[in-house]
Formats: sequence, structure tokens, C-alpha cells
Amino acid sequence: MLSSVLMKTDKNNAVLLVVCPDRTGLVAAISDFVFKHRGNIVDSDQHTDLETGTFLMRLEWELNDFQLDRAELQNRLQELAKPFQMQFQLFFSDQKLRMGILVSKYRHCLYDLLVRHALGELEVEIPLILSNHADLIEVARHFGIPFEVVEVPAGQKQAAENRQLELLKKAKVDFLVLARYMQILSPAFVAAYPSAIINIHHSFLPAFIGGRPYHQAYARGVKLIGATSHYVTEELDNGPIIEQSVSRVSHRDRVEDLIRKGGDQEKLALAFAVRMHVEHRIACYNNKTVVFE
Amino acid sequence: MLSSVLMKTDKNNAVLLVVCPDRTGLVAAISDFVFKHRGNIVDSDQHTDLETGTFLMRLEWELNDFQLDRAELQNRLQELAKPFQMQFQLFFSDQKLRMGILVSKYRHCLYDLLVRHALGELEVEIPLILSNHADLIEVARHFGIPFEVVEVPAGQKQAAENRQLELLKKAKVDFLVLARYMQILSPAFVAAYPSAIINIHHSFLPAFIGGRPYHQAYARGVKLIGATSHYVTEELDNGPIIEQSVSRVSHRDRVEDLIRKGGDQEKLALAFAVRMHVEHRIACYNNKTVVFE
Amino acid sequence: MLSSVLMKTDKNNAVLLVVCPDRTGLVAAISDFVFKHRGNIVDSDQHTDLETGTFLMRLEWELNDFQLDRAELQNRLQELAKPFQMQFQLFFSDQKLRMGILVSKYRHCLYDLLVRHALGELEVEIPLILSNHADLIEVARHFGIPFEVVEVPAGQKQAAENRQLELLKKAKVDFLVLARYMQILSPAFVAAYPSAIINIHHSFLPAFIGGRPYHQAYARGVKLIGATSHYVTEELDNGPIIEQSVSRVSHRDRVEDLIRKGGDQEKLALAFAVRMHVEHRIACYNNKTVVFE
Amino acid sequence: MLSSVLMKTDKNNAVLLVVCPDRTGLVAAISDFVFKHRGNIVDSDQHTDLETGTFLMRLEWELNDFQLDRAELQNRLQELAKPFQMQFQLFFSDQKLRMGILVSKYRHCLYDLLVRHALGELEVEIPLILSNHADLIEVARHFGIPFEVVEVPAGQKQAAENRQLELLKKAKVDFLVLARYMQILSPAFVAAYPSAIINIHHSFLPAFIGGRPYHQAYARGVKLIGATSHYVTEELDNGPIIEQSVSRVSHRDRVEDLIRKGGDQEKLALAFAVRMHVEHRIACYNNKTVVFE
Repeated sequence: MLSSVLMKTDKNNAVLLVVCPDRTGLVAAISDFVFKHRGNIVDSDQHTDLETGTFLMRLEWELNDFQLDRAELQNRLQELAKPFQMQFQLFFSDQKLRMGILVSKYRHCLYDLLVRHALGELEVEIPLILSNHADLIEVARHFGIPFEVVEVPAGQKQAAENRQLELLKKAKVDFLVLARYMQILSPAFVAAYPSAIINIHHSFLPAFIGGRPYHQAYARGVKLIGATSHYVTEELDNGPIIEQSVSRVSHRDRVEDLIRKGGDQEKLALAFAVRMHVEHRIACYNNKTVVFE
Repeated sequence: MLSSVLMKTDKNNAVLLVVCPDRTGLVAAISDFVFKHRGNIVDSDQHTDLETGTFLMRLEWELNDFQLDRAELQNRLQELAKPFQMQFQLFFSDQKLRMGILVSKYRHCLYDLLVRHALGELEVEIPLILSNHADLIEVARHFGIPFEVVEVPAGQKQAAENRQLELLKKAKVDFLVLARYMQILSPAFVAAYPSAIINIHHSFLPAFIGGRPYHQAYARGVKLIGATSHYVTEELDNGPIIEQSVSRVSHRDRVEDLIRKGGDQEKLALAFAVRMHVEHRIACYNNKTVVFE
Repeated sequence: MLSSVLMKTDKNNAVLLVVCPDRTGLVAAISDFVFKHRGNIVDSDQHTDLETGTFLMRLEWELNDFQLDRAELQNRLQELAKPFQMQFQLFFSDQKLRMGILVSKYRHCLYDLLVRHALGELEVEIPLILSNHADLIEVARHFGIPFEVVEVPAGQKQAAENRQLELLKKAKVDFLVLARYMQILSPAFVAAYPSAIINIHHSFLPAFIGGRPYHQAYARGVKLIGATSHYVTEELDNGPIIEQSVSRVSHRDRVEDLIRKGGDQEKLALAFAVRMHVEHRIACYNNKTVVFE
Repeated sequence: MLSSVLMKTDKNNAVLLVVCPDRTGLVAAISDFVFKHRGNIVDSDQHTDLETGTFLMRLEWELNDFQLDRAELQNRLQELAKPFQMQFQLFFSDQKLRMGILVSKYRHCLYDLLVRHALGELEVEIPLILSNHADLIEVARHFGIPFEVVEVPAGQKQAAENRQLELLKKAKVDFLVLARYMQILSPAFVAAYPSAIINIHHSFLPAFIGGRPYHQAYARGVKLIGATSHYVTEELDNGPIIEQSVSRVSHRDRVEDLIRKGGDQEKLALAFAVRMHVEHRIACYNNKTVVFE
């Protein structure tokens, strides 16, 4: 079966994501730290933004012969980080992230994520699907994922968001995916998951911000339509872009064809973003992403 | 819901597909025939292959005010066709084609087709899914499609194919889709559905014909991988190509990544082929396709 | 040599472009008209915009056995057009369009167009290159194209445009290409060449309208950059889009890389637009294009 | 001017390319070596092929404060390399590679390379263009590049190749680009420039190996055509692939259209390969390339 082909052999790796001011010796300091404690580096990627003087790095190493336990590792990294003003995140491959999904009635992105998950393409736990409608409960059930409805009546968004946050907290969700969720989240909600809410916008941002982008694209007569996955920030459709994908259209395509063709790009751009996020391959700075693909 | 957005308004159209030797007056003769019986042409596309002197045309018109009934139309078209040595196929938009699906254990293409069908993207009936394994029965059940298992034990292919053909006949299937079906069909089976079996091959044909194309692609070190949907003919992976789709790969991609990335292209190339087929947009000649997109 | 391979055999064809309100019988009326005067239709393409009720058609036929001379053809078409409120344009393949090119200092698009012209890819005459700088005179000389400098000092645009229009008129130019011309044309200038000035904008419109789009794209952190060829209208960067082309970028790409990668897309989108225009394959309506590719 | 925008600020960097058996501590050893001699690493990329146990790395650092001179650096690297069985190549950004170009009569790739060079996109010297025909001498002259004709009469390839090698040696050429050169090079010639001859093949390899690939593609009825840049090895069209690029085609495209569309992909795939080569971003192993983009 496909799933067995794709399932990675059980890994016991650490992943370190670093952002800090650029300075001579950073690569050497970090890789030497790992090496001297007997970590075998299996993947190393680094980027320096010369304009802002920002250094970013992703390092992955095997823990089999590593000499520090996880608590020690965390402590020693803090010591290492201090003189470099390093912000770092540390992950372990045997601790899968927990992803919550928010949906409304559109189901193409939801199916896409759940099929990929079932096939082993996404190394993530999915403890909860939240929706403001009951329509997609059978989809969740088919894949064996808990599904909760929290209606969002006009004028009662805050109560609804409180209930959503409560459910997400109970499900111990690490990050959220808006799989064509048709509600705008409040700044307070967004602040609860910083750099941890992934949205799919159905246009090639920054073109066609806001509502009904396919109708906007049709009216403008564009020859390509697109989809953009990005982290959600306070400002609508303006967070750090993770991935963009486009499809050719022509005068023969009506709005319904744009919706269909765009739907395929939405699935690809969203699935890519989720995979990069759960593999800890995205670093954010300056309202942009660095994707260590 | 998406499905309601995509559902075409009820159409009552005729579609005519024509292949014949090129000759002056063909466009005029056919369009005049439709017009004088009060058919409103809504789509007309034509291609002349100058090398072989072949004329191909697709014409779609509304039947609301059309003055011939369907039997008369068929008769009058035969009269029209004779002097031009025209081969033609006539379809009506209210008579959806019936599609049989053959699968084995891979499920990404099956899910993709069934979700699109549920969303109203494919105007087709699906009366039967046939498999040589029972693995995917729950998928069929979720979408409410009949599922039958016909095992194909080594040395007993002919008996199995007889049983398959019997089931397909009983389900009144018009054409077949091999959604990563892992058995090679016999020439007799292929002959039962001429230009009516669509396969998805997981390479950019004619590169990597035959088994394990992703492994072949990995060994060769290509920088793009592809998928090809085509009609099945007697000769393996050599039938008329309907669509090809590619994805960029790099040295970082292992065979399992090629399988994952290629899977996305398989879905796109297969779904496109099925949509073109059910909308009667494909004409075959000279082991090639003309796709009136 | 490549040029001889690409040179079309001498054709003696007529091309008719039609835009009119949709009505039953249009395809039949037009194709019958051509046929009864013994024109052999070699290419026919048609589009109906159901939303606005607009019918558009491109018809190409051989004139060898055609029974009307060119003046008669024009007259008879006017008679045919009247009852249908048809707007039509008639072209003959042996009368090549005459293209003027406006450039400033960037030369990648200019080289691209002139090499394609030399290779026989563009069936067009190029009687004049106009520039506000003398930098590219050697490029023009190498390809044997007349080159004139009309400086555009601040505050003297109108005098400059008058001089430009005079030179273009003298060179009997049918349409203009702005090959990265860095001046904004006045409404009066634009009005002198309606639907006949092709510009290349170095972004994926409508994203990044106006100046320094690559810098804008870099600042936003997009993952794809694009180029858009379009007809120039009074409103900046808002004319009918002919073609769009994109290229993948990553965090590794600095502004200079965006300029380089984008330059390739500019060349492709502009060359495609010019080829479609000189082959009379573009119909405009409703601030959009129909490209009969 | 574009060239000034694209021109990199004067760099004084070292680039190290490493291939060796994978082993713990490689990243740390190499980056520590650079750091302890005060090299500031500006770019670091690494790849481990787990299947073959091969480690590959590209490291670029600034030499401004570096404490070793170039001879010392070479010596110390040899010491470092020995215990790791490391094969390494060392380059300096102020020593541009010298590129020889071989052409026949097709000029689209030649123009493309020379325009990019003139614009500052390729950091390379071009001391010589060699051709078996005199046709393109004016192109070379326009760009100020020496051009020599060495005819290759039937049966006299060896004498011609001797003359070519002599001229290339005299011009101190480091590597060669076959910009649609229509002669097959002998194994002896190829052996004189190991991993240093870049060819552009006008198909999506391994499809359509050998002659007239566009005609082969047309006959097969493919829906995408491609181009492949690769290093030349003894076996025809079978060397390590550097880059592949594709373009969509349809039934409307004749062989001459495939040639035109394919030509654009040839230019892109070849220019990319040349840029990667001159920036020392390609490592070869196992008849594949790793492109540290």
C-alpha cells in the first residue's frame, strides 16, 4: 500500500530552527555544538539575509548516539544562544505536532488534507476538526477524526471564539489550518496562535485581497489564477506567504471554471504549507518566510 | 456548497464529434445543417491536420428550438456524412456517460475522482468500482458507489477478465478508468472498449515505459517528473496521449518523494482526461488525440 | 538554418475577426458566406460570452480559389455585418503589419524581439525603433532596423510625443510595442493607437501596479513573480491583459535575482502577445482579450 | 542600465565543493576549519545521499579577514581532506571561469548566452566561439567575442577535433558549452574536458534521445515538450542532467511550432546550467548532479 511506502522509517531526530543577527562563526558554533555531543547531522540549511543582517538556520541530527538528554539539550542550547542573541526552536521527530482544522462547507481542501494524512504524507496528529456548520461531519467520520460544530451567529463571534479556543486547548492543538474557513478571526484569536495559523487564500496575493477573489479575477480578465498559503496575522490576507501556486485560464473559463481550477491550486499550496510546517522547515522574520525545503 | 456553485444549469444540448478527410465546405455544411433546423450553436471548434489531410470538429448546440427529434437527427446526419466520408459521434448532454473504475490498492486517484464527482466537477455516472483487492471498499462505501472484488490470481487472468467484463456489461458501463490499476489488460479486454479505457501512467511518456517509473526516474537523475493520461491500446503505454503534467524535483527528493509529488500530477492528468472524455471533447486519429478544450 | 525551417510557406489567406451581439445563425452565416465564394476555411475558432451575450469569431481561409477580390470582399462583408450589428476586421496574410518599438535603456526585451524577428518567428515588418536614449543604437544597427532618438525632457513630454507620432506616422506604423519603455504615455498618444499599443509590465497584474514592482514583490515576500503583457489604455496598467507568465522565487533570491528571473518572463509574455497580435488572433471586448491561440 | 543593476558588488570569496563518503562530523569539521581562520561563511548548503552514503557540500566564505593565503588554504584543505577521503574543488570569485562556446548554424541559444553575458547575468569570460560554419560570425562580432571556424568534413572529424582542442587550449578555456552544436564529439574530445562540457538536448530526456527529437515528439503526440541541459559523457545524451524545462503544446502545434516553443525552453535550461556551473554550484556523482541553487 502507498501508505507503507511513504511512511518514513522510525526516526529519532532533533530539529533546530535558529533566527538571529548575522555574525561570523554562527555555522561553526552550532554545528560544532552538535558534533561534540555526537549528533550526526543529516540535514543542514542556512540563509543569510544581507539586507537586514539576519541569519537563519535549520539543522537536523540523529539522536541515537547523542550524549545529552532532551532537558540538558534545551539548557545547553540556551547557553549557546545567549551571546549570539539567538532565538531558537527545538523539535523532536518522535513528537508529532497536533493540528486543528477549521472548515465551513467547502470540502475539497479538507478531503485533500485528510487523504494525505491517511497516506502518511503528513507527519502530524489531527485531534480535532472544528466547523461553523454540520455539513462535513461525514467526511470527518470517514477518516476517524473528531468533529465539533461551533456556530458563529452574527454578533456572537466572541462567544463562539471562546468556545473554539476552549475546544482547541482541550485537544492540545499546536497549530491551526483554515481549510477554506469562511470566517474572519479576531485579533485576540490570532494572538493565541502566533505564527501557527495557516490559511489558504484563493488568489495570487497580493492581487485580489478580500472576498470573492475568483469573481474579481474573472472581471479583470487575468490569464493565470492562483492560490496563496500564508500565516495569519492581524491584517487580513497580509501575513507571511508560505507558498503560491498558479493555473492557466483562458477566455473560455467562466467563474465556475476558475473556482474548479483554483481549487486544485488551493489544495497544492495548502498541503505544501502544512507539510513544511509539520517538518519544522519554516522560519518567519520580517513578515516573510524562509522555507528550508 | 461548492457542488451547487459548480453544477451547470440543466442543459439540453447536442454534441457532434466529426473526423473525416479534409475538403472545402465542411465547416459551412455542418454549421448550416444545424442552423437550418434551428439549433443555436454554443460552442464550435475545429482542427485541420494538414500533414495527413484530416479534418476534425466538435460542435455543440442547444436543442430547445431544434426541429429534429433525436432519431431524425441521427438519420439526417448519416445522409450528411456520406458524401464527405465523415465518421461522427453524436451525444446528448442529458445522457450522462457511465464510467467504471478499476483500482488495486493505491487510493489517491480514486479519492480524487470520487471527490470531484461529489463536487459536481465530472458530469458522469459511476455505477461500478472494480478491484482485484478488497482494500478500498470503505472508500467506495463512503461515496455510495457499488464496489466489486474480482481477484486476478496468477495464471487465471482470462477467467478474471471474463468476470470483469460481465460485471461491467451488467452495470452498462460506457468507458473505463484505470485509477492506478496494477494489472495489464489483455488485447481482448482492450478490444471490448476501443478508445474508451483511460489509464494514468506515472511517468512523462515516452520516458520510463513499463514498471516502477519513479525508480527509473530517480536512477536517471531527472529534474522533472511527470504523469501521462492516455487511452489504452494493445501496445503497453503507447496509446493516444490525452494529457501530461510535470513537477519539479531535486537531488533532495528520494524515491518516496517522487512518488508523493508524482501522485499529485497523476491526479491532475487523470481528472483532466476524464473531464474531457465525459464532455465529449476528445477526438482520436493516427494514435493521437485532439482535445477541444 | 532555423529561419528557413520556421518560415511559413507563402500563404495567401484572409483573416476575419468578428465581435457582435450573440444570435442564432452567426457561425452558419459567416462560414456559408466564405464557402459559397469558394474560400477554403483552414482555421475557425469561436467564443460566446454568455454573461454579456457577446459573440466573437476568428476565421481564416485560403484566397487561391476565392471568387471575390479584396474590395468586393470588404463590401460584401459590410452587407453581411449590418443585420447582425457585427464589428469586423479583415486582414490579408500577404500584408504584414508594421510594428514600431519604443525602448529606453533595458535591452533584454528588444534583443528578444529582434532575434525572433530575424528567425522568422514574427511575421511583421519593423520599420522603426524609437528611444528616449541613444544607448541601444548598436543593437538596432546589428539587426538593420532604423533607430531614432526622441528625448523626453522633464516638462516637455507633449513636444516629444508630437515628434514621436510624426516619426511613427512617417514610418507607417500599424501598432506599437513598449519593450520596457520607461515613460508613461499621455491619453492623447494612447488614443492615436487604440488597441494597438502593447506593453509589458514587470509584475503579475493586478498585483504591484506602478513603479518598481520587483522591489514591491521582494518586500511582500511572494513565492512567484510574474510579467503581464497588455494593451495600453488611459488607465495605468489596467488595459486588457493578453498574457501572463510566472517564475518561482525563494528567500534566496534578492531583488537583482527577481529582476533577472522576471526578465525571462517579460520576454516570453511580450513575444507571445506580439505573435498573437500580428497573426490577428486577439479580439478585445469589455476590457478583456479573447486570444484565439 | 540593467547590467549595472545586476552586476554583483566586487566579491572576494572562496567557494569549496566537497564530495566524500558520509561520516559524522563533516559539517562541523569543514565549517570549523573556515571559522577558526576567520572566514565569514555567507552561504552553506549540504546534501547527504543516504542510499549511496555520499556527502556533498558547498561552502562560500568571505576572504577579507581570512588568515590563510590561497596556497596555504589549498595545502591545509588537503590535510583536512585526507582522513575523510574528501574530494574537493576550490574556487575564488575573483577568478572567473573561461567558457568556450561551440555552435553550428542555430543562433537562438548563442544570442541568449551572449545577451545574458552582456547584461552581467553570467560571471564568466568568453574568450572563444568555435563553429563548423561561418554563418554566425556577425553575431560574435556584435558582442566582441573572437570567432573561429573549424570545418568538420565527413571522415575528418579527428583532424578537426585536434584543431579545435588546440584553439581551446590556446584560449585557456576552462569549460565548454555546446549551444546547439550539431556534431557528436569523440570520446577522446570528451575526455579532455571531464564534467566540463555542457550540452543542451532539445527533448525531455530520456525521452527522444538522438536526432530530430521535435519530429519524434510530434509523431508521438505528446502534450508537453522539453529541453535538457546536461554534462556530456561518452554515452550519447546520457550524461548527468543539470536542468530540464518544459512547454505545453497542443494538437494545433506543428513541428515548426514545437521547434519554436522548444527553443525557448532550450535557452532557459542552458542558461541556468551555465549560471550554476560558473557559480560553482554543481557537484557530480553517480552520473547525477547536485545543484546547490
